[in-house]
Amino acid sequence: MTIQKIAIVGGTHGNEYTGPYLLNLLKYRVPVLRYLTFDLKIFLANPKAYQNKVRYIDYDLNRSFLSEDLANYSLDSYEANRAKVINQVLGPKENSKTDLIIDVHSTTANMGVSIILVNNNMFNLQLASFLSTRIPNVFIYYIPPEAYTGNNDHPFLNSLAKYGFALEVGPIPNGVVRHDILLQAYDATLACLEYIEKKNKGMDVYYESTVDVYEHVSAVEFPLDSDGKIDAIIHKELQDMDYKPLEKGAPIFEKFDGRIVVNHEDESFYPVFINEAAYYDKKIAFSLTRKKRIRVDNIT
Amino acid sequence: MTIQKIAIVGGTHGNEYTGPYLLNLLKYRVPVLRYLTFDLKIFLANPKAYQNKVRYIDYDLNRSFLSEDLANYSLDSYEANRAKVINQVLGPKENSKTDLIIDVHSTTANMGVSIILVNNNMFNLQLASFLSTRIPNVFIYYIPPEAYTGNNDHPFLNSLAKYGFALEVGPIPNGVVRHDILLQAYDATLACLEYIEKKNKGMDVYYESTVDVYEHVSAVEFPLDSDGKIDAIIHKELQDMDYKPLEKGAPIFEKFDGRIVVNHEDESFYPVFINEAAYYDKKIAFSLTRKKRIRVDNIT
Repeated sequence: MTIQKIAIVGGTHGNEYTGPYLLNLLKYRVPVLRYLTFDLKIFLANPKAYQNKVRYIDYDLNRSFLSEDLANYSLDSYEANRAKVINQVLGPKENSKTDLIIDVHSTTANMGVSIILVNNNMFNLQLASFLSTRIPNVFIYYIPPEAYTGNNDHPFLNSLAKYGFALEVGPIPNGVVRHDILLQAYDATLACLEYIEKKNKGMDVYYESTVDVYEHVSAVEFPLDSDGKIDAIIHKELQDMDYKPLEKGAPIFEKFDGRIVVNHEDESFYPVFINEAAYYDKKIAFSLTRKKRIRVDNIT
Repeated sequence: MTIQKIAIVGGTHGNEYTGPYLLNLLKYRVPVLRYLTFDLKIFLANPKAYQNKVRYIDYDLNRSFLSEDLANYSLDSYEANRAKVINQVLGPKENSKTDLIIDVHSTTANMGVSIILVNNNMFNLQLASFLSTRIPNVFIYYIPPEAYTGNNDHPFLNSLAKYGFALEVGPIPNGVVRHDILLQAYDATLACLEYIEKKNKGMDVYYESTVDVYEHVSAVEFPLDSDGKIDAIIHKELQDMDYKPLEKGAPIFEKFDGRIVVNHEDESFYPVFINEAAYYDKKIAFSLTRKKRIRVDNIT
């Protein structure tokens, strides 16, 4: 199998500037990318949201790619229309002209370089394993469809292609670019392209034979007051502790009145997206994952 | 002189959550504040912007307090109206019922705890000196009216009262609260109230007899392409270097095409607000200040 068509996507969330800036870097600084074994498309997903410096105009674009919604022409938000256009350009979903998509995001959480998979096929896991050996501070976060939507479909842009991942870098505020975070996204993207070029040419590529995958379990809400408003902050011992085990009894929130809320889960889960700005709207404080070690050396 | 009425203000910019959360903390956790020598008003300045998680609805509220604009009833933005209401509640400007205002802000820049003065009277400088002795990582940033507006007036909310300052804490993304940054704002606010309580009671208060004040000189724009779009990022050697001297020839920007832009100022200025998200709109990359040592022991 060779990878013929790759899309590198930025600005799916308009206030996450690392993606659009990375697209510019690739265009200006790496013209040699045009002369490799694959076609490369550099694609700004939500130009209107980027121009307006907001996550989205009407609705989260990265929740707009369920097959059901792509087929539903009664949806008329800016992003519902934009998703159908992107489905034409990069898809169509389930029968996609694009083999692999890297969708570049950023987060206010301390998540290093997260490879977020919506499909844990062996190709993706081996690619993620390769990136883990090349790039410091890489974590692999897998979101099974049933854990997220309750059925077998995914609403993420990445679901348009069989291969690839969302590349999530942070911590960084929305609406700014930092050289260090941009460089992490750049290095991870170029390492991914190197992997594919070598595989396409039948060259050997080294990766670890096992990887640790953090599998999504559930989202945890902030404590709310009687009006439904958030009345606590992330506890200081949890802040920035993404991908670290969270033990039973550990403090997770400090309420305005001073009370401490502790973790009641019997299993040691691994929190991610701790204090992500975009999730305050949904009252979500962090998500829990289960850490699994997976063999990736059984090449099919 | 005693300070009779104090206002602690948060949410002047609706996406800077530290302020509104600090107001809640003060209400829930420090009820004893009601029994001191001064009246304390806890005030959410821009509730609509806070609810919508944006800096402002129509226009920057913290640029809406020029005397001329407060008197201009043809201005009809949400913030132009809100400024007139706040002028009634806390002002009126030039004849204010409020003696001292602490207006709590946050920044994506690495500015520690910045005491931003729009009035460098001796009371404010002594208070700032006291805070410098009490709180780690304090910087005093003075914005002379002529440097900013070109005339003798200020557009900032703080200009409603003779005493006080904007308390600027960071670095922190917009739209999140962090325990560490919130604690810095809390400590600085309570230290300020302690100072006033002691002064009101005629007690001795220790502060250093000199302070370093960073005086605003000018704003520096990002390099722009031929379409007027930003085509560079803050150079890695400048990022996070707020309040550090910037020498002639030091790199300040890296352009998309790889070219480095260096600083051409002959004088060693001190940059502040480096990579502040809110200023991308105005294409401003950072501001320059001049460091001055000022004696504050000549009590009047």
